[in-house]
Amino acid sequence: MFDPVEKLKEFIRFPSVSADSKFKEGMRGAQEFVSGLLGSMGFAVEVVKTDLHPIILAHRGGDAAWPHVIIYGHYDVQPADPLNLWQSPAFEPTIRGNRIYGRGAADNKGPLMTHITAVGQLLEQNPNLPLRITFLIEGEEEMGSPSFLPFLERYKDTLKKADLVFLSDTGIPNEKQMVITAGLRGLVTFEIEAVGPKSDLHSGLHGGVLLNPIQALVDLCATLHTPDGRVNIPGYYDDVLDVEPWERDELKKLGGNEADYLKFLGIGSFHTPPGITPFEAVRFFPTLEFNGFGGGYQGEGGKTVIPSRAFVKISCRLVANQDPEKIKALVYRTIEARAPQGVKLRIVDGHTGLPYVVVPPGRTNTPKGQSPVLAQAFRATDAAVTEIWGKSPLYLREGGSVPIIGEIKRVLGLDSVMMGLFLPEDNLHAPNESFDLDVMKKGIETSRRILAAIAKK
Amino acid sequence: MFDPVEKLKEFIRFPSVSADSKFKEGMRGAQEFVSGLLGSMGFAVEVVKTDLHPIILAHRGGDAAWPHVIIYGHYDVQPADPLNLWQSPAFEPTIRGNRIYGRGAADNKGPLMTHITAVGQLLEQNPNLPLRITFLIEGEEEMGSPSFLPFLERYKDTLKKADLVFLSDTGIPNEKQMVITAGLRGLVTFEIEAVGPKSDLHSGLHGGVLLNPIQALVDLCATLHTPDGRVNIPGYYDDVLDVEPWERDELKKLGGNEADYLKFLGIGSFHTPPGITPFEAVRFFPTLEFNGFGGGYQGEGGKTVIPSRAFVKISCRLVANQDPEKIKALVYRTIEARAPQGVKLRIVDGHTGLPYVVVPPGRTNTPKGQSPVLAQAFRATDAAVTEIWGKSPLYLREGGSVPIIGEIKRVLGLDSVMMGLFLPEDNLHAPNESFDLDVMKKGIETSRRILAAIAKK
Repeated sequence: MFDPVEKLKEFIRFPSVSADSKFKEGMRGAQEFVSGLLGSMGFAVEVVKTDLHPIILAHRGGDAAWPHVIIYGHYDVQPADPLNLWQSPAFEPTIRGNRIYGRGAADNKGPLMTHITAVGQLLEQNPNLPLRITFLIEGEEEMGSPSFLPFLERYKDTLKKADLVFLSDTGIPNEKQMVITAGLRGLVTFEIEAVGPKSDLHSGLHGGVLLNPIQALVDLCATLHTPDGRVNIPGYYDDVLDVEPWERDELKKLGGNEADYLKFLGIGSFHTPPGITPFEAVRFFPTLEFNGFGGGYQGEGGKTVIPSRAFVKISCRLVANQDPEKIKALVYRTIEARAPQGVKLRIVDGHTGLPYVVVPPGRTNTPKGQSPVLAQAFRATDAAVTEIWGKSPLYLREGGSVPIIGEIKRVLGLDSVMMGLFLPEDNLHAPNESFDLDVMKKGIETSRRILAAIAKK
Repeated sequence: MFDPVEKLKEFIRFPSVSADSKFKEGMRGAQEFVSGLLGSMGFAVEVVKTDLHPIILAHRGGDAAWPHVIIYGHYDVQPADPLNLWQSPAFEPTIRGNRIYGRGAADNKGPLMTHITAVGQLLEQNPNLPLRITFLIEGEEEMGSPSFLPFLERYKDTLKKADLVFLSDTGIPNEKQMVITAGLRGLVTFEIEAVGPKSDLHSGLHGGVLLNPIQALVDLCATLHTPDGRVNIPGYYDDVLDVEPWERDELKKLGGNEADYLKFLGIGSFHTPPGITPFEAVRFFPTLEFNGFGGGYQGEGGKTVIPSRAFVKISCRLVANQDPEKIKALVYRTIEARAPQGVKLRIVDGHTGLPYVVVPPGRTNTPKGQSPVLAQAFRATDAAVTEIWGKSPLYLREGGSVPIIGEIKRVLGLDSVMMGLFLPEDNLHAPNESFDLDVMKKGIETSRRILAAIAKK
């Protein structure tokens, strides 16, 4: 059996930034690395071409009566900039203390390697394990998985026969508390560009004459929230579901401490709508967030210029039962209605992602006729976690988005068991991303037990 | 007498970029060239050391009863990059048609050579001309003249005895219409930085919990203007002077065409307060302009991040009678009062520049007791321009800033006669800068007549 940490190092060394075409080589390297590894474990590997980055489909067949688990992961990572804030190079895996540092260490190379290792160990112990396993590993997660839906449609007939999806691309609050993610937020992303004069202008010679594109965007963006922290778009909250009592109970068990959270974020106060705690806000309510704003002179000192254009990058996080297409239409309509005179506004579509919710067996709102293999997987997870982590997992919705989980549900009808593996201090999408090697170790053990328990008895 | 075009070519060949220490040699070359030329014309040249680039002070004395004119200019130029956009090398003067191309051709080497030539011709014709002349030629204009104020303070006692300053560092609308610049806007620049969480955050994991620094700045900046295009800071317009009827008349004579101006700027509509034309707005009213806004992800595509900080770079253009320090205090106080909770705001001081206005003799608001030599200079200018350019000059305020003109007024008590010499198509601060040789020829003749007329009768 391979050493999972050494393998993870190899994996991190490929700079697989999917959103930037400069990293084509790194993308190919990461894909070939994973394909090779799964092939060496006896999986039948198919590298499925897409318009952009291929999807790895690695299959271990068997008797049609055996349960069939799809293990999902992604081999692409976020851009690593600003590079100067990294303590060690982003693509040079470095171990400090019990952590491995590097872009993608936690999102998602470490967790993916956790499951690959668990499967490898399991098959080494029991080469005849009565479980069908399909690894489905994509390369476009960090850019919104544009090829995933066409892929699902194409492979629908085969994949829908599986029983469930098992993955780790969500978080846990600390290294002692496992969380099974019971819901994810959806996503709508887009960019607004404001175009003014045909070239940058001298702010002395022409200042006062025209609407500055930065000002146009600032004025527009300031209308998108109410002062008390809600999104100021008519109809935005219409489809948001009431939170179930058992969900509030789970959240209570999490016992989040507001003072600690403020300290962790490094801020002086929260900014949530009245009566909503930050722990509720991030799980149960939608947002509209400015991810980037640029225009005019960005360098040191000043330059007295009126820029010819400015842009803002926006993402909306949506919660269960909100339809991204409907929200997108609402938001675009509102922006167009509030568009200032004097500049041209252009909305550039980003991507959308479905929100998702899954209810473990025995809750007030567990769907009738929940798949027995899914229920068994949840029970196996509960048992394995209680054994290895010393206490039961919590079943919590999470603020992040894994849009393909909602797509899998919609297209294949399959639910997902999402075993959280990354910690708040892992710095996902930020400089100095890292992954806790003790969590990885416990994760391997947990994954192995869960898969063994799902296998046919 | 030297050939002014040949001398201008020599001058342009020195790459005197003040802001870039790589051009130290070029700066020294240009300085020695000007000092040598003025020395050869009989001037007593003093090269005044400063912390950075020396100031040339070249004096022609005479009887204390003779009028005394300071001729201002600068021997430094803007950086020439992007070099690949130049049709001929930036520091290799090239004549095409009636224009000489090269960095600094118009700003300010051509206009400065115009006045040096005029003085040379005048003294050749009449070596006993009853006029005292001091050339004051700095080398830091293109970097905000940091050494100029200390220099003024140091030489105040000598320089304040002069009668007026004469210069050409402003523009004219076309080669047929001379403009005497009657006012310049002042300047206050600063930057606001909003600091939120201690590092960039994942907008899924934490979105909805805290105030995004971009949102904080957007909300703040949106309060700084009224929808109708005024600056929304209490007291901002208190000291703005009413526009005098003669100023409106001059502007009417300019006959600016709004449709042409829209086309030139490449915009669909102006954005000026009600009842104010764009030609008035740029000359008579202050602005608050966003010169740069940056925060979060600026690259291609998207990144779902909540940035840890964001900034906006702001410049306020001020008009006559507004005090930059007072306005700065008003603006800072307003920003602090409107600072949103949940982020830290930091204001970073930029620089300030005094606005300036000078009223030619015989206007409704000409100051009582205007210096007779200044009045005589304006009348001489009017006569010379009418004779040589075929029509009277216009006396117009301009939207740009030449902060040292206000400093000269404040410290020395001297007014300036600003004879415009560069055309919109001269491409100041841009690639393919050039200077119109016909304008130069007419400028030499005009300057000579003006100086002759100022000389003691």
